[in-house]
Amino acid sequence: MKAATGRLRLGVVGLGRLGKRHAENLAYRVPGAALVAACSPLEEERAWAREALPEPRLYDDYADLLADREVDAVWLVTPSSLHAQQIIDALRAGKHVFCEKPLSLNLVECERVLAEAARYPHLQATIGFMRRFDPSYKDAFDKIEAGAIGRPFLVRSQTTDKNDNDGFFVRFAATSGGIFLDCTVHDIDVARWLLGKPRAKRVFAAGAVALHEGLREFGDVDNGVAICEFEDGKLAMFYASRTQAHGNDTHSEVIGTAGALAIGHNPRANRVEIYDATGVRNECTPSFFDRFEDAFLLEARAFVAAVQGGACADLGVQAGATLADALEATRIGMALRQSLQSGEAVVL
Amino acid sequence: MKAATGRLRLGVVGLGRLGKRHAENLAYRVPGAALVAACSPLEEERAWAREALPEPRLYDDYADLLADREVDAVWLVTPSSLHAQQIIDALRAGKHVFCEKPLSLNLVECERVLAEAARYPHLQATIGFMRRFDPSYKDAFDKIEAGAIGRPFLVRSQTTDKNDNDGFFVRFAATSGGIFLDCTVHDIDVARWLLGKPRAKRVFAAGAVALHEGLREFGDVDNGVAICEFEDGKLAMFYASRTQAHGNDTHSEVIGTAGALAIGHNPRANRVEIYDATGVRNECTPSFFDRFEDAFLLEARAFVAAVQGGACADLGVQAGATLADALEATRIGMALRQSLQSGEAVVL
Amino acid sequence: MKAATGRLRLGVVGLGRLGKRHAENLAYRVPGAALVAACSPLEEERAWAREALPEPRLYDDYADLLADREVDAVWLVTPSSLHAQQIIDALRAGKHVFCEKPLSLNLVECERVLAEAARYPHLQATIGFMRRFDPSYKDAFDKIEAGAIGRPFLVRSQTTDKNDNDGFFVRFAATSGGIFLDCTVHDIDVARWLLGKPRAKRVFAAGAVALHEGLREFGDVDNGVAICEFEDGKLAMFYASRTQAHGNDTHSEVIGTAGALAIGHNPRANRVEIYDATGVRNECTPSFFDRFEDAFLLEARAFVAAVQGGACADLGVQAGATLADALEATRIGMALRQSLQSGEAVVL
Amino acid sequence: MKAATGRLRLGVVGLGRLGKRHAENLAYRVPGAALVAACSPLEEERAWAREALPEPRLYDDYADLLADREVDAVWLVTPSSLHAQQIIDALRAGKHVFCEKPLSLNLVECERVLAEAARYPHLQATIGFMRRFDPSYKDAFDKIEAGAIGRPFLVRSQTTDKNDNDGFFVRFAATSGGIFLDCTVHDIDVARWLLGKPRAKRVFAAGAVALHEGLREFGDVDNGVAICEFEDGKLAMFYASRTQAHGNDTHSEVIGTAGALAIGHNPRANRVEIYDATGVRNECTPSFFDRFEDAFLLEARAFVAAVQGGACADLGVQAGATLADALEATRIGMALRQSLQSGEAVVL
Repeated sequence: MKAATGRLRLGVVGLGRLGKRHAENLAYRVPGAALVAACSPLEEERAWAREALPEPRLYDDYADLLADREVDAVWLVTPSSLHAQQIIDALRAGKHVFCEKPLSLNLVECERVLAEAARYPHLQATIGFMRRFDPSYKDAFDKIEAGAIGRPFLVRSQTTDKNDNDGFFVRFAATSGGIFLDCTVHDIDVARWLLGKPRAKRVFAAGAVALHEGLREFGDVDNGVAICEFEDGKLAMFYASRTQAHGNDTHSEVIGTAGALAIGHNPRANRVEIYDATGVRNECTPSFFDRFEDAFLLEARAFVAAVQGGACADLGVQAGATLADALEATRIGMALRQSLQSGEAVVL
Repeated sequence: MKAATGRLRLGVVGLGRLGKRHAENLAYRVPGAALVAACSPLEEERAWAREALPEPRLYDDYADLLADREVDAVWLVTPSSLHAQQIIDALRAGKHVFCEKPLSLNLVECERVLAEAARYPHLQATIGFMRRFDPSYKDAFDKIEAGAIGRPFLVRSQTTDKNDNDGFFVRFAATSGGIFLDCTVHDIDVARWLLGKPRAKRVFAAGAVALHEGLREFGDVDNGVAICEFEDGKLAMFYASRTQAHGNDTHSEVIGTAGALAIGHNPRANRVEIYDATGVRNECTPSFFDRFEDAFLLEARAFVAAVQGGACADLGVQAGATLADALEATRIGMALRQSLQSGEAVVL
Repeated sequence: MKAATGRLRLGVVGLGRLGKRHAENLAYRVPGAALVAACSPLEEERAWAREALPEPRLYDDYADLLADREVDAVWLVTPSSLHAQQIIDALRAGKHVFCEKPLSLNLVECERVLAEAARYPHLQATIGFMRRFDPSYKDAFDKIEAGAIGRPFLVRSQTTDKNDNDGFFVRFAATSGGIFLDCTVHDIDVARWLLGKPRAKRVFAAGAVALHEGLREFGDVDNGVAICEFEDGKLAMFYASRTQAHGNDTHSEVIGTAGALAIGHNPRANRVEIYDATGVRNECTPSFFDRFEDAFLLEARAFVAAVQGGACADLGVQAGATLADALEATRIGMALRQSLQSGEAVVL
Repeated sequence: MKAATGRLRLGVVGLGRLGKRHAENLAYRVPGAALVAACSPLEEERAWAREALPEPRLYDDYADLLADREVDAVWLVTPSSLHAQQIIDALRAGKHVFCEKPLSLNLVECERVLAEAARYPHLQATIGFMRRFDPSYKDAFDKIEAGAIGRPFLVRSQTTDKNDNDGFFVRFAATSGGIFLDCTVHDIDVARWLLGKPRAKRVFAAGAVALHEGLREFGDVDNGVAICEFEDGKLAMFYASRTQAHGNDTHSEVIGTAGALAIGHNPRANRVEIYDATGVRNECTPSFFDRFEDAFLLEARAFVAAVQGGACADLGVQAGATLADALEATRIGMALRQSLQSGEAVVL
């Protein structure tokens, strides 16, 4: 499945803001990878690729890219509603596939992808929960594995964005799946990953519209809180927000019987502290792009290493989230949305 | 209602660990206060009072203390089950009353106290939610009042204790009311105080037994999580634990439309940081006694100032929690316990 | 040396801003102490004492206070130039004496006080280096004693004040002794206390006038840095500033062969953190009054306990700085000033 | 000066631990760079290059590499004593040159390099003070430029290493130049860079041997402190240590008339905080490799961008330290060593 040079030949699909970042990582910063193709329906994005990338073959149609026999793996950074079918098409074309989260906002579709993937056990199919590749999250995971906090039983995790006055996510509300499927899905995956992949048993969610009244018509909120009980008696608490004043503040805590770990509690932008008349302060990461810059790169390295059957020097043998993980995250996220809308606990 | 000297004459009732601390504060550290009487059924505690306090009159019977006409106010640090009746008796005896939390674990009793107190509007009756008097909590309250974070709409608050291998609280489980009424009741009061005293609309709670299996027979847990929705669309999330490795970790966050405040996030014992082979660390406050030492003193000063009709230099005119606040905290705490046990959201 | 009641009877001398604070502590917050007298040449300060203190006998002349046989100890918060003679007079009058730093800005005077004090070994004579009584400094001292950092060999310590645009200290420059004798003297005492009381061998100092040009005519600076070598090969670095933007920032580090301790690195005002568009911040202690509020109280308790021959519950048997400590601090401070002015290292 | 492909063709010289890191960065992580050659006298290092790098031409003799006409620039990671002559040789061969610090431990040699370089103004010659490229240091620099702290007048900066029981640096002491030329030279460059490149006027240094007695015979110490006065009235304080328990702790502070900045105060390894019975802690960066991983990469990108006449996307037009900067750093470092040994202030 590798080219003669031993490099994995990739094609990136979707060249929006996040697609561009993935493309640059694959093109220039992942040993063993060669970005040979890119696909976008937009001429403007293909023009960017011509300029910024090392001469990839450019496609405006996903089917054409899949037909390119010199492509070993596809990297999907496309709208969520397309993910499921595009993954299936890639697998059928004999290509490894990496797909940005979420797998799908529809459980039946999720299961259809899992069923299809089961037919191609030799192909990698990974969903992009990049937080697993953040060095600090990874360090916490390793410490837990090593027993540093005894038995972990509670995760508290949040995904909160700096307020966007333009309200992009309001316009996006009709298709985002709501705050829990769009944001909390990351925290769900983190919680399950750090707690040993338990299955959810019961959830409850509530929310508030703090600033963006336009969300009400979609049954959505700009701040959501939730509790998730797992079958093995473990617990998770989630918070998601679109309205933080200080920046993107993504952090998690894992509490065990012999200690606890906090990951990223202060979303410091860097190592600088400012002393002035307002006190002592640090600036914050403005967006998840800034916070997870390294994680996006490391997940690409890990994917390439996984396909090539080796370990990734930065990450050991860590693999990303499986389709089954992604299915469970969607299942829990949908239950949270249902609880938010019904005001009742939802049993899974 | 003041002695000729202008000092408020107090009698403390109950001289356990916390009672002793209150007694010492009232005796030596509260301008305008004179601790003139103390009551305990235990000779050992009265013996301590003889030694440590400035010659109070000692009683073994609460009724005798109430009959002491040279006592203006009583300070109750007695078992929770006695609070309601003792408050009523104090008011009927014409005395101001300060009572440790909780008001009662029984809503009917709570309401009976409120009804009785309504007959004595000239008497102070305050429940000891000391967290309101902690300088950091007070600073947060003042900043919110001044508009520093816009409109506050979410409180996250926790009360977690260092694990006690002796499991005092397991033996205490039959009468404590459970983790939410024993611990979270403080967070409930903090949330309502910081959010403008909203009424609760719906709650959900869940829990885990991480270490203390003995709690199961009482329907109790050693780690509990909860969500509370208020009638005005505001929210609170709570966490209570008996099993922390690092110390008593009581902290709260208030999130508003223009910013957020965190109070006590790192439960640092003092201003020392230790650099050694394990990294950079600070030690933590071992117990709520250590964490809230100043708050216990300041609440005593505020009570005395309130009775004397003046402002407290340290606190302005801040008053403590009213009986109505205490009733609402019990009401919410009981709903949390009911939700924990039923697995369903509870509508209040 | 105690009154019949067993309480130490104190007279406070000097009722400026710091004197008032000491007076209130002695009057209301020090078990075993009775503030029975106060002395000030200013009617306005005596009027304050009449109002705020528990009926002390008031004097406008120090000699009259010393003649008061119902006074066991004097507490000097007077101008530095008076300290030496006032201590001698107090000892000759048979009274214990606590005196604010510095002992004197004149080494001959310092030695005269030591010689005189040697004649009254039954009388306490303590100089107020309150930093030793700050709970965090004390915790560091105890940790070092317990071997937590191996052998300590380097102290870095600073005393920096929030910039005062009024430039009080410029007007005060003629008599303050300069920045090293006024500010750094505290750091010198801390360094020697934490390093085992070594004698200084050689010093070097330099400085800058950042904002207050008026200091130049006095050979003084508003920011000073210094190095001190001790006879046993240990070292200290000092920084003093009058021009900080963020507040009073007094902190120290002790570095040992097996670890290090930092005391007060972030001069946080309290436990609140503020999240807003500028980042995450804490406010700072505005002045040394705020930073060392507890230390001033604890040093008073320790002095009273020391006179009464007992241990102080808060502090064990810790005693304050001796006259010999104060002499050494002055000796080093004067050498720093000499180095600043000569540009050369000064050998002691 | 660029190859047909537009990529700058580099040859790395020296493949020790740091050389390997530079080589990998140049080979795989610097857009616009092509690592086409490598030179080491050791077969073992060339074998590594064969395996790890993308087929560079390998040399065992520097002169041969310089004769390679397909090399545009050389990257020197060789022993300090070789730097000066190797830079001169590279320039004479028409190649741009990047050289690890220090320029030389000999001032006459430094000046000889500057004189030679003046003859080749079209060639880049940069000394590797990588700290300028650390994103946090760069952020501080930019904030100062923007006026965030008023006029900066004092830098405090330290370079401290985790104790190495093997004492590599003891064996290295004969040629390292001593702690100030080996470690503090970075802080000197940082101080000058952040203060506007002032010239030094007078310095004083002192030191202690805390653990490594073997240094005494070289007149060296394992802990050194220093003060540097600049001609424009600005100041710097330095601390260097070989014996820290907690890790590599490199940090700096810049104090200005309207505020201050601290860079890297807590040498946290990542964003994880650990809560256990010892308190709340973070682990520390073990070595400068870990602390400055990004800086090493960014300085390579900046060098390549500078040669190519463009701006570096990550860094704007920032250039590294010039030969003149390196000369001044050596000049100050040598004066510090002289002061340490003489016990006297040294006027430059």
